[in-house]
Amino acid sequence: MPDEICYIDTRTVATLLEEIAVVDVVEEALRSHALGRTVLPAEAYLRWTTDDGWARSLTLPAALGMPTGTAGIKVINGNVANPGRGVARASGLVLLFDVLTGQVRTVMAAANLSAMRTAAVSIIGVRRLAPRPVEQALVIGAGPIGAAHVRLLCQEPTVRTVWVHDLDGDRAAAVAALTSDVRVRVDPVRDRASVIGDADVIVAATTSVNAHLGLRHIRPGTLVVNVGLDDCAQDLLLGADHLVVDSWALVADDDKRLLGQLIRSGRVTAAGDSTSARAEQVVRAELGQLIAGSVMVSPRQDDRVVLNPFGMAVNDIALATAVEQSTAAKGFGLPLPR
Amino acid sequence: MPDEICYIDTRTVATLLEEIAVVDVVEEALRSHALGRTVLPAEAYLRWTTDDGWARSLTLPAALGMPTGTAGIKVINGNVANPGRGVARASGLVLLFDVLTGQVRTVMAAANLSAMRTAAVSIIGVRRLAPRPVEQALVIGAGPIGAAHVRLLCQEPTVRTVWVHDLDGDRAAAVAALTSDVRVRVDPVRDRASVIGDADVIVAATTSVNAHLGLRHIRPGTLVVNVGLDDCAQDLLLGADHLVVDSWALVADDDKRLLGQLIRSGRVTAAGDSTSARAEQVVRAELGQLIAGSVMVSPRQDDRVVLNPFGMAVNDIALATAVEQSTAAKGFGLPLPR
Repeated sequence: MPDEICYIDTRTVATLLEEIAVVDVVEEALRSHALGRTVLPAEAYLRWTTDDGWARSLTLPAALGMPTGTAGIKVINGNVANPGRGVARASGLVLLFDVLTGQVRTVMAAANLSAMRTAAVSIIGVRRLAPRPVEQALVIGAGPIGAAHVRLLCQEPTVRTVWVHDLDGDRAAAVAALTSDVRVRVDPVRDRASVIGDADVIVAATTSVNAHLGLRHIRPGTLVVNVGLDDCAQDLLLGADHLVVDSWALVADDDKRLLGQLIRSGRVTAAGDSTSARAEQVVRAELGQLIAGSVMVSPRQDDRVVLNPFGMAVNDIALATAVEQSTAAKGFGLPLPR
Repeated sequence: MPDEICYIDTRTVATLLEEIAVVDVVEEALRSHALGRTVLPAEAYLRWTTDDGWARSLTLPAALGMPTGTAGIKVINGNVANPGRGVARASGLVLLFDVLTGQVRTVMAAANLSAMRTAAVSIIGVRRLAPRPVEQALVIGAGPIGAAHVRLLCQEPTVRTVWVHDLDGDRAAAVAALTSDVRVRVDPVRDRASVIGDADVIVAATTSVNAHLGLRHIRPGTLVVNVGLDDCAQDLLLGADHLVVDSWALVADDDKRLLGQLIRSGRVTAAGDSTSARAEQVVRAELGQLIAGSVMVSPRQDDRVVLNPFGMAVNDIALATAVEQSTAAKGFGLPLPR
C-alpha cells in the first residue's frame, strides 16, 4: 500500500491533457456506462450564501469497470461572480481511490479536466448526431468550457470555421487568439445572429439562467448542444426532431433545469415509456447507447437535433485516470505524506 | 486570493487535535445547527465491488454560520476488510472552501478528525443524557473510533474506569495501553458480560452488521450510544425510555440502518408528529436542541437512554476549521500549487 498521495496541479493536468485522446477516453466511458459497467450515484449539492449572492459545491462520484477498475469523485465548486474578481468561475479537485482499500491515491486539479470532458461529449455528439458534416461551428460562451470546445472542434477533420461569441467581446477574442491552426479559421463574432444560420453545430456554453436559443433561431439541419443547460428555450427542447441526453437518470432527477422540469411534468418522456404517446417530446437515446450500438438515431439532413448533456462523473473519473497514468509514466506529481 | 492550497497530513492533524477543545467545537456546531445556521445536504454514497467484497466512499457536505463562515466536505472511504491487510478501515480527506469563491483552500487527512468528532458527540450525550453520573464506561469496539472515545472519556471529570472490549483482545489491549491517565483506569475486557451491568454508559462502536445489544443486556440507568448504527437491536431502540438522535432528517432518510427503517415503517416517529400516538417509540429530541435549550430531556435514575447519532458533516467541517486555524497559527501545513 503506498504511503503517499500523489498530487497533480493545474498546470501539469493541462499539459498532460494535451497528449491524451480525450474524446476516445470519454467515448469508452460512455460505452461502459451503456453496458452497465459503471456505478453513477446521485451527486452531493451544497449551496451557501456569500456576501455577493451564493456559491456552490458539487461532488460527483463514480466507479467504472467490471471488475471495478477505477473509482473516485470530482468536486467542482463555483461562484458566477468569480470572473469579476479575476478568479475562475469553477474550480475543484478530482480524488481517485485505490479500488481495493478505498484510500485516496491521487488528488488533481479538476477545472481543465472537467471542461475537456464536457467538450469531448459535445464532439461525440458532432460525430454521431449532426445532420450534416460539420464544417462551420458556433461556440456561444468563451469561458474555459467554451475554450475547450474550440480546441477540440479544431481537431475534427471536417471543421473549417469556428466562430466564438461572448457578451464580453474581449473574452471571445482571447479564446480565438489561443488557437493558431492553419487548417481551421477561428473567429470571434460580436453579432451571433450574423453567423447562427450558417453554423452546422451550435454549442451553447454560457452561465446564463435565461434561455436565449429558441426554435426560431435554429436553421434546419443543425445540431445544438445545450452545454450550459439553461441556454435552450422550451420550444427548442420540445420542437427538436431528435433529443438526446447523456444520462436519462441524471437529467430526469434534476429539478433545477428546464429539461428535468419538462420530464417531471410529463411533457417529455423516454423512448419506450408507456406514456410517450401523450408526450410532446421523447428523448430518443442516451449518447452511450449510440456508441454501444443498442439504439440508433439517424437524423435527416433537415432535422434539428438537440443534445442535452447533464455531465457524468464516469467521464471525469475515466479522464482523471488517464491523467494519473500519464503522470506516473512521466514521473510527474508531488508525493504527499498521508 | 491565495494561489496555493494548504495540505495537512495525518500526523499534523492528530497533533493539533490534541490541543483543540473538540467537545466544545462540536457542541457549538450542533447549537448552530439547532438554530438554523447551517446547510447540511444529503451525502453522496458510492459503493463498488472489490476482489474481496465491496468498498465505499461517502462525501458529506456542510456549511456553517450566518453569514456563512465555513464550508466544505468530508470524504471518508473504507473497506471493512482493510484491517486484515494492515490498512485502516476508514480514511479520507476533508476539503475546506473559500466561502466567497468556492475555491478549495485546505485539504487535510480526515480519519482522526472524523473519529474525534464522533466521540465528541458521545461525550455531549454523556453530559446531557446519562441518567446517573458516569463513573464507569464500557467501549465496545477498539478501532480508531473506539480509541477516540476512550481518550475523551478519560477527560470527563466523573469517569473513574473505562473498559474496552473487542472481539480481537489484542486490539482492546492496545487501545487500553495508549492511555496512561493516573486518575482513570482503562482496562481491556475479554468478557463484556462481566462488566456490562456496571457501566453507566455503553458506547457501541463496532463494524458489526448484526445487532448485539438488546434491551435485556442494558441495566436501568444506563446510557447507550449506538455509534456503529447497527449495534443496537430493535427491542432496545423501541424499548428505551428516551431515544435521542443528532439529526432527525439524516436518520430518517437513511434506509440502510435499523432506526431509519423503523421510522419508515411508522414504528418510530418524531416528537410532535401527529402519528406519534400510534408509534411504539418517539424520538424525543435532536442533540442540538438540548444544547440550544429548545427541548428538554430529563432522564430519571432508572431510565434506559439511547443516543443514536448518524454523523453530521457540520461537526466535521467545524472541527476541520479549528484544525485549519491552528495550522495557520503555528505555520504548519504544506503549500500546494493550485
